[in-house]
Amino acid sequence: MALWVKEQQTDDLALSCRVSKVLHREKTPFQDMAVVDTLQYGRMLVLDNIIQTTVGDEFVYHEMITHVALNTHPSPKRVLVIGGGDGGSVREIVKHPSIEKVVHCEIDGAVIEVAKKYLPEISCALDNPKVEIIIDDGIKHVRENKQTYDVIVVDSPDPIGPAEGLFSVGFYEDIAAALKDEGIFVAQTESPFLNRDLIQRLFRDIGGIFP
Amino acid sequence: MALWVKEQQTDDLALSCRVSKVLHREKTPFQDMAVVDTLQYGRMLVLDNIIQTTVGDEFVYHEMITHVALNTHPSPKRVLVIGGGDGGSVREIVKHPSIEKVVHCEIDGAVIEVAKKYLPEISCALDNPKVEIIIDDGIKHVRENKQTYDVIVVDSPDPIGPAEGLFSVGFYEDIAAALKDEGIFVAQTESPFLNRDLIQRLFRDIGGIFP
Repeated sequence: MALWVKEQQTDDLALSCRVSKVLHREKTPFQDMAVVDTLQYGRMLVLDNIIQTTVGDEFVYHEMITHVALNTHPSPKRVLVIGGGDGGSVREIVKHPSIEKVVHCEIDGAVIEVAKKYLPEISCALDNPKVEIIIDDGIKHVRENKQTYDVIVVDSPDPIGPAEGLFSVGFYEDIAAALKDEGIFVAQTESPFLNRDLIQRLFRDIGGIFP
Repeated sequence: MALWVKEQQTDDLALSCRVSKVLHREKTPFQDMAVVDTLQYGRMLVLDNIIQTTVGDEFVYHEMITHVALNTHPSPKRVLVIGGGDGGSVREIVKHPSIEKVVHCEIDGAVIEVAKKYLPEISCALDNPKVEIIIDDGIKHVRENKQTYDVIVVDSPDPIGPAEGLFSVGFYEDIAAALKDEGIFVAQTESPFLNRDLIQRLFRDIGGIFP
């Protein structure tokens, strides 16, 4: 039997990836989680049937979502990562010598556990002494931490299910307040080819809040 | 009935795109050609079951395969495009004011006819007076035109079937000889994620021929 992960990216587009082995399957309080080995991209994390990351190509995403902001800020010391339980963003952030503290706020602790066990290439910096892991709602954390961070990275999954609130105006207002002066906000905002309406909305929402 | 174009990109990876209408189907002397309307990417050209171009995202490919080389060369006047019967590369090249002549050498005249009829957004510069279309084998054309071009763009499909010879050492040697001094060669070389062996081979082959 040939097993495939088939991600329906939209109603009209699907990506299918052959699976050689299912390593882990778990229903967490937040989502349906799976780790599989694929022949094309190596090991893959899948949440609610949506491909989150693969060992074969994760560097493209994690390098871009972190280094552009961190190299733009003159001296980033305190960084917040919301989501990104696989640890790839944290791994890239701690490469910057100016970093003193990375607060990693992930709502689903089971994702972090599974990443540590099955995705060591991606999660390898989660034990770095500069990294504090908080298992909590990122929206709440941001609301309660005014003027705390130089850079905030929202490393979220698709804007449905547990991540829906990470694409809301109220959240962006709290992000702006949680940043120090000269702070930088960067967020995963889906494919511009497949989600034009979402990206137009985000630009409008964010443009109205950030200077 | 839902119709899908399913492109098996490798044995282990497939992309499926829903089709709303099949506009044209033809067995040319060189390949199986189809033009379909898709819901995700708009109109699409498919050759031998492999997606060649779509109106929705072709600009990414055509801008990159032309403007990098044309902006690197100090004054490109004569450009050769091999393949690329849809006309997208030619459309971008004639935007450069220094261009005097674009020779467009496509082996399969049926592709050009179908592009003119069904893909006007892409083929719109094929009637430009600076453009000369030659329906012939690009390998032969390059062999017979020494020191003729400032830039040569090989806008080929996958390295199988009619395009196989466009990925050979002998062809690269003829390309080098067909370029003027300071000439630039640019080629479509497939996805670096999916074709590592091919790209390693190409770098080795081309590096041994070009200074």
